[in-house]
Amino acid sequence: MDYMTTAKKIKADSFRLASLSEEIRNSSLSVICEALEKNSHKIFAANEKDLMAAKEKALPAPITGRLKFDRSKLDSCIKGIHDLMALPDPLFRVLLRRQLDTDLLLEKVTCPIGVIGVIFESRPDALVQISALCIKSGNCAILKGGSEAAATNRALFDTIYEAGCSKGLPSGFAALIEDRAGIDELLKCHDYVDLIIPRGSNSFVQYIMENSKIPVMGHADGICHVYVDKEADIEKAIPVIIDSKTQYPAACNAAETLLVHKDSAGKLLPALAEASAGNIRFRGDEPSSRLMICEKATDDDWKKEYLDCILSVKIVNDIDEAIEHINRFGSHHTDSIITEDAAAAEKFMYYVDSAGVYHNCSTRFADGFRYGFGAEVGISTGKLHARGPVGIDGLVTYKYRLHGNGQTVEEYVSGRRSFRFEDKTV
Amino acid sequence: MDYMTTAKKIKADSFRLASLSEEIRNSSLSVICEALEKNSHKIFAANEKDLMAAKEKALPAPITGRLKFDRSKLDSCIKGIHDLMALPDPLFRVLLRRQLDTDLLLEKVTCPIGVIGVIFESRPDALVQISALCIKSGNCAILKGGSEAAATNRALFDTIYEAGCSKGLPSGFAALIEDRAGIDELLKCHDYVDLIIPRGSNSFVQYIMENSKIPVMGHADGICHVYVDKEADIEKAIPVIIDSKTQYPAACNAAETLLVHKDSAGKLLPALAEASAGNIRFRGDEPSSRLMICEKATDDDWKKEYLDCILSVKIVNDIDEAIEHINRFGSHHTDSIITEDAAAAEKFMYYVDSAGVYHNCSTRFADGFRYGFGAEVGISTGKLHARGPVGIDGLVTYKYRLHGNGQTVEEYVSGRRSFRFEDKTV
Repeated sequence: MDYMTTAKKIKADSFRLASLSEEIRNSSLSVICEALEKNSHKIFAANEKDLMAAKEKALPAPITGRLKFDRSKLDSCIKGIHDLMALPDPLFRVLLRRQLDTDLLLEKVTCPIGVIGVIFESRPDALVQISALCIKSGNCAILKGGSEAAATNRALFDTIYEAGCSKGLPSGFAALIEDRAGIDELLKCHDYVDLIIPRGSNSFVQYIMENSKIPVMGHADGICHVYVDKEADIEKAIPVIIDSKTQYPAACNAAETLLVHKDSAGKLLPALAEASAGNIRFRGDEPSSRLMICEKATDDDWKKEYLDCILSVKIVNDIDEAIEHINRFGSHHTDSIITEDAAAAEKFMYYVDSAGVYHNCSTRFADGFRYGFGAEVGISTGKLHARGPVGIDGLVTYKYRLHGNGQTVEEYVSGRRSFRFEDKTV
Repeated sequence: MDYMTTAKKIKADSFRLASLSEEIRNSSLSVICEALEKNSHKIFAANEKDLMAAKEKALPAPITGRLKFDRSKLDSCIKGIHDLMALPDPLFRVLLRRQLDTDLLLEKVTCPIGVIGVIFESRPDALVQISALCIKSGNCAILKGGSEAAATNRALFDTIYEAGCSKGLPSGFAALIEDRAGIDELLKCHDYVDLIIPRGSNSFVQYIMENSKIPVMGHADGICHVYVDKEADIEKAIPVIIDSKTQYPAACNAAETLLVHKDSAGKLLPALAEASAGNIRFRGDEPSSRLMICEKATDDDWKKEYLDCILSVKIVNDIDEAIEHINRFGSHHTDSIITEDAAAAEKFMYYVDSAGVYHNCSTRFADGFRYGFGAEVGISTGKLHARGPVGIDGLVTYKYRLHGNGQTVEEYVSGRRSFRFEDKTV
């Protein structure tokens, strides 16, 4: 496959996709649901092949669990597409309609971003979700899934692609990359690809950011914190800490560091060590180590994403020290304060420079599904465009359309005409 | 000045600024207006010094015109700040308020981006406008103006800085960089600076994009097009073309290339040549050169920003060829179609991949003031975050705040609890 030529063709088709009505995009989604159902045996058979290969390679259980694509995963994918179809159209929304002068009308109208490259882990349901989000938002999708799911991805992609084309989506509406080398080719296509959303390991995302001129939306690190304040309810704190760390330690929104106010440490740390029942390995600073059994934390621990049931622990003198630590070592993802003091919670939420700032709950809530977005294409730790879990709103941008009747700027600069701004309701 | 230390301090102060009430930000702006008035003689004297130096260096008239900061420019700056004060607060706006479950409330709330570095041309009024926009939107501003305006910038900055601090803005709310080397230092401060907005020449903006990890908002090139369609009103087309090219040729929104449908060329080009009365030098492709006196265009002309009264001209077979040319050679800034055919205009507006897509008017309208934004910090040709002229809305981002009461994700994953999404009116 000549990626540059393919990407150029996809780019040209992206404008066709961008101008299709909501009805065509939604009916394509509907036909895709039918086709997924119709081809389910083929898809499950492909998945069996992937699972067999995974077994031969003795891949760990969490990976095969995500790799598995069975009846219940298919049902949940189809339900997800139906939910998406029911959402209001993200395109052609008029964000501003302003009469600048007689016969000179400015409109700010949402439109797709264009061509989006999404690189995702070995979870076949991700391919379905991302394709559907891109169709709904009028974006062409260049997809690269984890190689462990290659056969399932191909079966799902073929089903979606054929169904989409049959309802009038342009042939460049989606493409599947099947080899690792294709990623490097994709990264060179900055003239034709508008955005890359990489999901995966820190080093992989860093690699992409450093090797392409294409804007990247997502996150490399997920270094999240729980801070237990002076006025914390310890009974509330302990389950939240355990959940933030252990509910799914490999997730980006799992906590890596626990910060504890010095006045709460004496009560909290021994009780936490007991409650965690050996399921968490602690790495504490010197004062913590006097209150609980732990390994010694080094400075490197504060910037480490363990992806494992390891939690670094640091005792701080006050909330300011906690905030400073989070803003310095964190990854601007999601951080939670446990406190009964409303003013402290407010301060934390203003001063912590993260996409998610939480009060008295687990960092694990940072997720498009849990926010009620239906699905997410990724979680962004950048501050521009979309931040936090990115749903369909993050896949659109806008254009300014100016409708005139021969106006020149000279008429306004010379004073012969003047602007009379009048906003219309939209 | 140790820039890294300064930037770190400014970053710490940015959270203080982010939590200040609208009242404090607006009253600071009010005091700044008074201080500008009070210090006007000092400011005008500094400007005299800059103008004198410009005269000695024999700088061209357009540059000294922009450099001049007199009574009328001061009045217009002060009026601009008052207009800004009257705008609704861009901060603390709740974009989404969703009850996820009992006692679990998600809010998406606007907040400042943080620390913004703005590098701008030798126009002292830009310093006032940018500072005011940043204060209103709660962002710390690191400012670097053109060296020709050094004395005026210093006088304006001192006035604004002292007045701002007197009303309670944190001392890091603004900083002035006075030497070129400071720009390189600024570019290294990616841990503390959230965004750079460079205004200036193509090569300068390219340099910044290539030499910093800090996100950049703005544009390098301004290659705008006017396309005269088959069904164009030639009487309407000619003044729009002349305005797009000559009203201010050094601006980024000036047109560089005229595309003409082959059926309109015979009428349009000779009439345009006559109407432009020698004020435009044309560089045409071969077919154009048979219809008007022009130099020969080479392939390089299609990607050239002349910043001068030179216009390249190309005859196309149809609207598709025009759109393809614009998307290939343009800079995604602003492009205008001249046509009486509404369907052609619609197609152009969907398919042209630019921040501004215009129908029957001059490309020169692409400007924050002319869009009624009051002022702009720059014009973005990127598709993420802000696009086109960037006013105050482009200077804010948002955070997700989640207010809980000890909730864990495990409760929801295990099915003991389930989400009951309910959106509240905001």
